[in-house]
Amino acid sequence: MSVSKKIREAIEQSSWIRKMFEEGARRKARYGPDKVFDFSLGNPNLEPPVRVREVLQELAGDTTPGRHAYMANAGLLETRQAVADYLNTFNRPRFSPDEIIMTVGAGGALNVVLKTILNPGDEVVIPRPYFVEYDYYLDNHQGIPRLVDTHPDFSLNLGALERTITEKTRAVLINSPNNPTGKVYREAELRELARLLTHYGDKFGQPIYLISDEPYRKIVYDGIETPSVFDVYPETFVVTSFSKDLSLPGERIGYAAAHPEISDKAITLAGMVLCNRVLGYVNAPAIMQRTVARLLDESVDISIYKRKRDRLYGALTSVGYEITKPEGAFYLFPRAPIPDDIAFVAALQEENILTVPGSGFGGPGHFRIAYCVSDEVIEGALPGFERAIRKY
Amino acid sequence: MSVSKKIREAIEQSSWIRKMFEEGARRKARYGPDKVFDFSLGNPNLEPPVRVREVLQELAGDTTPGRHAYMANAGLLETRQAVADYLNTFNRPRFSPDEIIMTVGAGGALNVVLKTILNPGDEVVIPRPYFVEYDYYLDNHQGIPRLVDTHPDFSLNLGALERTITEKTRAVLINSPNNPTGKVYREAELRELARLLTHYGDKFGQPIYLISDEPYRKIVYDGIETPSVFDVYPETFVVTSFSKDLSLPGERIGYAAAHPEISDKAITLAGMVLCNRVLGYVNAPAIMQRTVARLLDESVDISIYKRKRDRLYGALTSVGYEITKPEGAFYLFPRAPIPDDIAFVAALQEENILTVPGSGFGGPGHFRIAYCVSDEVIEGALPGFERAIRKY
Repeated sequence: MSVSKKIREAIEQSSWIRKMFEEGARRKARYGPDKVFDFSLGNPNLEPPVRVREVLQELAGDTTPGRHAYMANAGLLETRQAVADYLNTFNRPRFSPDEIIMTVGAGGALNVVLKTILNPGDEVVIPRPYFVEYDYYLDNHQGIPRLVDTHPDFSLNLGALERTITEKTRAVLINSPNNPTGKVYREAELRELARLLTHYGDKFGQPIYLISDEPYRKIVYDGIETPSVFDVYPETFVVTSFSKDLSLPGERIGYAAAHPEISDKAITLAGMVLCNRVLGYVNAPAIMQRTVARLLDESVDISIYKRKRDRLYGALTSVGYEITKPEGAFYLFPRAPIPDDIAFVAALQEENILTVPGSGFGGPGHFRIAYCVSDEVIEGALPGFERAIRKY
Repeated sequence: MSVSKKIREAIEQSSWIRKMFEEGARRKARYGPDKVFDFSLGNPNLEPPVRVREVLQELAGDTTPGRHAYMANAGLLETRQAVADYLNTFNRPRFSPDEIIMTVGAGGALNVVLKTILNPGDEVVIPRPYFVEYDYYLDNHQGIPRLVDTHPDFSLNLGALERTITEKTRAVLINSPNNPTGKVYREAELRELARLLTHYGDKFGQPIYLISDEPYRKIVYDGIETPSVFDVYPETFVVTSFSKDLSLPGERIGYAAAHPEISDKAITLAGMVLCNRVLGYVNAPAIMQRTVARLLDESVDISIYKRKRDRLYGALTSVGYEITKPEGAFYLFPRAPIPDDIAFVAALQEENILTVPGSGFGGPGHFRIAYCVSDEVIEGALPGFERAIRKY
């Protein structure tokens, strides 16, 4: 055997997803890329704000020595200070640079937190539907995912969640605004979740952490705001990136923040810094740390995503799709008109529309539309969406 | 317990290294940074070549859409093609972009390779002294390090190495030019190593990989060249970065290359791409991929490091230090004049000279001097080096 057993299995399991991508590529080659409507990837179509280019140009010309050198594994002090200042604008606890670790995107941040806290066999509770990379990230550190259903509107089902908590539960991992549903958890449900975690943490004699994955924090609609998890629970980590709000996903820049009153703070922070190093990340890319330090208040124009959401949500519900209206992020997660979501996604593919089955997110019977695409793709796909649902 | 058992132990074990760093920081604060001679870190003092800034400035102003977007997890085709073209200038096997995965530095590349090939409990043979991050990287994927002594001149001891090979051996991991010794393995010893690995791979019915960590490939002296491992053995991965030859360690850009004739090539490459994704790296930073694609023939001025090596090697041997003359990289690894290298490093610290004990590299009885520092640091430290050895 050349590759490890686990990686071989992962490649085999992901083969149907690969087949879907290959079919999409075949259709683009055959019909022309403008005749295929690709909603399969969460790759933002908006360019970074103009300020990103301005700052990058300035930094690229900077001749100060050491600009591209190694640094402390936690990251540049100036960037961690800027992130702390930013967090202090909307959280009640006061952050200092010590509680911030700059990371290789939110994926890097989440792996750093998980490696810091997980012993082999520890369980992490995840509300579903969920971002399936979490399965791999947990497995990297021998953690076990415990999936728990949400309510039909994708809000937290705290009764179900409480029943999954055991003495093996090390953390609850949430993602709000959510990929794939667009749900934004409310402060009231987070307070109730915090009450549960406090109760069972006390009962089992060790903290149950809340890990909140928030790359879509700024991408919210209709006056909804993403509540502060730090305000409701002290045993909290936030992991996030600048991939979505600054449209920089290819640059791999994000951070992990630990609550200023988290248990055993000194060793927890030392553990995070060590993990950033030993996982091979070493530090977040230097030039991007300097870039985002000056752009924490910036974001792409969220109203453009809102317009896309409104157009697609309106058009699809008017022809019969059932959709819980997303409150943030840039995904729709409609119910498939037939129980077999994989079959329905294949039917959409016949219309040259590429989406992802809900089964890929632990949400069978649904499918995900990533609407971070051009208006032409949205308008071009609408007749096909209508024809597909008419078949059933 | 807040942090995992393993991370807690790692923090405790590294506490003496931390104490050393803290002592160094205290001395800099007390005596002034110009009175403390810091040889403890492999952080290149040379700035990146001017071309790096020129290319970065051009890229920073580029308004082409999608420059900072997600890409295939393997990296940009243009960059992988440039790396393949570069490899084809000094290796006999012919590379295509398929065999190149762009990574978050050499640390990212090595973790990608190890996760691809290791089943839990698999063993990796490592000649010592060695770069101790390898212990963590192996442990990330539940691999077991099997350390094997080198000859007194730090060349491979193939007899000893052969005796460590068992049916659990999955790979041999070498680093040439070596950190901390500066040794460059010769083609003859690599051929002999290849013969051994072929023999035992055949005997045990699965390939024993050679993984060659080569970030110092271009940093060699006295007409010595780093031989091609790809030329001598097909079951080979090379992992490397642009951290040292372009002085870009903070930017986290490197790559892994698999031999074009490696066993089960398709699934091996698919595994590497998957691992780059699921380890949370996702892809190497986009702007740095575009930068290095145009700078593969560049490097910092190696003659400057050679001059530093010659000055320090000459001065230290003239006062009695025993040193195997390094052939590459930017480290000296002298024998400590007393068996207790930690005590001798403490004695150097009394002279405001910061070095690292060989025990930290599996090479007790020695200490490491990273001479990627200014000439002022080297000249300023010489009297202290002389006083320290006179004590014994």
